[in-house]
Amino acid sequence: MYSTRGPDADQWQPRYAARTAGMRASEVRRLFAMADRQDVVSLAGGMPNVEALPFDALATLTADLLIERGRHALQYGSAQGDPDLRDRICEVMTIEGITACPDDVVVTVGSQQGLDMLARIFLDPGDIVLAEGPTYLTAIGTFTAYQARVVHVPMDGAGLIPEALAETITRLRPTGRVQLLYTVPTFHNPSGVTLSPARRAQVLDICRRAGVLVVEDNPYGLLAFDGEPVRALRADSPDGVIYLGSFSKTFAPGMRVGWVVAPPAVREKLVRAMESAILSHSMFTQLMVERYLATQPWLPQLKVFRDMYRERCQAMVTALGESMPPGTRWTEPGGGFFVWVTLPPGIDASAMLARALASGVAYVPGAGFYADGGGHGALRLSYCYPPPERIRTAVARLAAVIREESAATDRVPSSSVC
Amino acid sequence: MYSTRGPDADQWQPRYAARTAGMRASEVRRLFAMADRQDVVSLAGGMPNVEALPFDALATLTADLLIERGRHALQYGSAQGDPDLRDRICEVMTIEGITACPDDVVVTVGSQQGLDMLARIFLDPGDIVLAEGPTYLTAIGTFTAYQARVVHVPMDGAGLIPEALAETITRLRPTGRVQLLYTVPTFHNPSGVTLSPARRAQVLDICRRAGVLVVEDNPYGLLAFDGEPVRALRADSPDGVIYLGSFSKTFAPGMRVGWVVAPPAVREKLVRAMESAILSHSMFTQLMVERYLATQPWLPQLKVFRDMYRERCQAMVTALGESMPPGTRWTEPGGGFFVWVTLPPGIDASAMLARALASGVAYVPGAGFYADGGGHGALRLSYCYPPPERIRTAVARLAAVIREESAATDRVPSSSVC
Repeated sequence: MYSTRGPDADQWQPRYAARTAGMRASEVRRLFAMADRQDVVSLAGGMPNVEALPFDALATLTADLLIERGRHALQYGSAQGDPDLRDRICEVMTIEGITACPDDVVVTVGSQQGLDMLARIFLDPGDIVLAEGPTYLTAIGTFTAYQARVVHVPMDGAGLIPEALAETITRLRPTGRVQLLYTVPTFHNPSGVTLSPARRAQVLDICRRAGVLVVEDNPYGLLAFDGEPVRALRADSPDGVIYLGSFSKTFAPGMRVGWVVAPPAVREKLVRAMESAILSHSMFTQLMVERYLATQPWLPQLKVFRDMYRERCQAMVTALGESMPPGTRWTEPGGGFFVWVTLPPGIDASAMLARALASGVAYVPGAGFYADGGGHGALRLSYCYPPPERIRTAVARLAAVIREESAATDRVPSSSVC
Repeated sequence: MYSTRGPDADQWQPRYAARTAGMRASEVRRLFAMADRQDVVSLAGGMPNVEALPFDALATLTADLLIERGRHALQYGSAQGDPDLRDRICEVMTIEGITACPDDVVVTVGSQQGLDMLARIFLDPGDIVLAEGPTYLTAIGTFTAYQARVVHVPMDGAGLIPEALAETITRLRPTGRVQLLYTVPTFHNPSGVTLSPARRAQVLDICRRAGVLVVEDNPYGLLAFDGEPVRALRADSPDGVIYLGSFSKTFAPGMRVGWVVAPPAVREKLVRAMESAILSHSMFTQLMVERYLATQPWLPQLKVFRDMYRERCQAMVTALGESMPPGTRWTEPGGGFFVWVTLPPGIDASAMLARALASGVAYVPGAGFYADGGGHGALRLSYCYPPPERIRTAVARLAAVIREESAATDRVPSSSVC
């Protein structure tokens, strides 16, 4: 009933699951490819600057681990994750005001897998997930893979707008199960904005009343440029918030070690889901992260990262102020990796990308961060990877591109609304 | 609308997705816990004997990797996996007669994740997956998590019975989409049986005619005790077979590096699914496996593993022959990790487990390997982990337990049918 056809024909086309149609082609992969081009300064990817890590110390640490605990590090582990690592994770979270015990924690393949596992246990087709508009690009892909509907809640410079959240829940409830609020409250991806303390209490209260589970995705929480660490939502609502953490930005993404903190009954289901998904995570990378936290000066190293990212962020914000044409707006983050730029009316960031690449600068068009067709008049810039001088060069190139695009737009009537 | 209740109450109970009900409590986790008890010889887990690996050489290799390629090893990678590793994987597969190019390969978190990704792109609720009876325990959990129906096809000492396969497809087709044949054709888990060459051709032909995609799970293929490597199903049907491979048994499960080989259109969808699931796999463990294959004598090391497992298998089969009561039958594997034992009529392996543990031996009851309530009269023994002397002790204990259970069963009329 099937036969060999041309290499491009897909004989299995009629066989895919309905959810497969919702899997979006990868914006991110394309961007990784662009970032490798020598003549392009990429402000696109969210890759942390791992070159600041002490490679020699890590080499010694890993060699010791293999010699001393090789039989554990190379073996299968449990689906919930290594207990010693879970213990360390609880210590790390105290910085953000979270009280949790190791049994509350499930170690995941990056926080991305935590998101996937939550989607797996909570989302039926047609269920509704609320998220900031804009929101983390790949989260949209994950929710869509479970055939859920992502509905955006507007945000401003102080984060998610509580009144809009309440209104959206009320409006949507007759149309389906409003299951989750997915939020990146601290140094938001892609906007760089942080939810204000007053709004945190309001958001938690609205979700508690509405029975909506809050998923707090917090990969950047420890990357504040200055001042006290931001208190996590989970710290004030252990029953109503599931917390996603990650060592990708505070240590290294190559470990793929993230985690979920959840109430016991949910955690039990997450562990079962993990087993069906991957059996168990790498003991080797788990024990390496555990030993890194136990033996290396990881808080001073975090300070190195924070100082580096602050300098780069300042370079970007200053360059934007110096070069951007009138009508352009941008956020000024207090931590994390990203600045969100709103273009002058009439310019489409997706359409402009080809011109930008030709001019030697890459970014992520805003439309990727919306599930509903929004975001065309905006783009995300990341300052985490290139050094300050390259950031200045890239922003100057981008400013020139926007000016050219503005001039072209002025000549041709545009129907786009931003 | 929700409030803090007792620690055991699950306020989110009404909120779970329908698929969550199908997630089975973990048999495997319970067994890992048992395996740790000093007084119990565990013939339960399928843990490879990583203690045979050269820890010192691995320590040097890993330290070199971090110093020479730290900025790659600690960074994000692509969702498809490292190209150099995919190249090596293609070389490895030539041993089993497979011709594939690196672009056909997707690196996964163990072959378990490959299975999960295939389920994600192919299985709608109610779809049918055919599998050997018995079949790999965690595969049942994965298919069930996608609300698929697992239907068993009988096997005998030469593997899956082709006539039964054809009959099952014909019988089921009016009831739903028969999407996949999931098979472990070589050194089968849990039975230890290998599909004969003649039957391989028949199985491929039946599935080709019926338009059923074959998923060949082959973690043990390179662990033949003697003779030539077994030719993979994929070698003779590149368009009709998706192949799952793993380094968990030929190198170390702590890496969690497995892979999928699929036709281009399917592979493209797998990569999208991977992105929504984990963004990318650990570059660190991928590059470590790549360097292990490139710089270490991995084929001689594989010979060490094969000789060790052959010795242990012989110890088990000999001990079974010497001590098992009449009416007990078992398989005699030519490779891999497992022996399948069929108990004398009337004995339930699940019910017998408590007595076995009290007597100091652990196994996996056969029921776990069936989705349909079968397998109560059988159990799986693994010989991969304990040394021969411990295997002999454990089999003697098991034989005594079966004799006791037989005596007890003779006294009490039983309704169980095996």
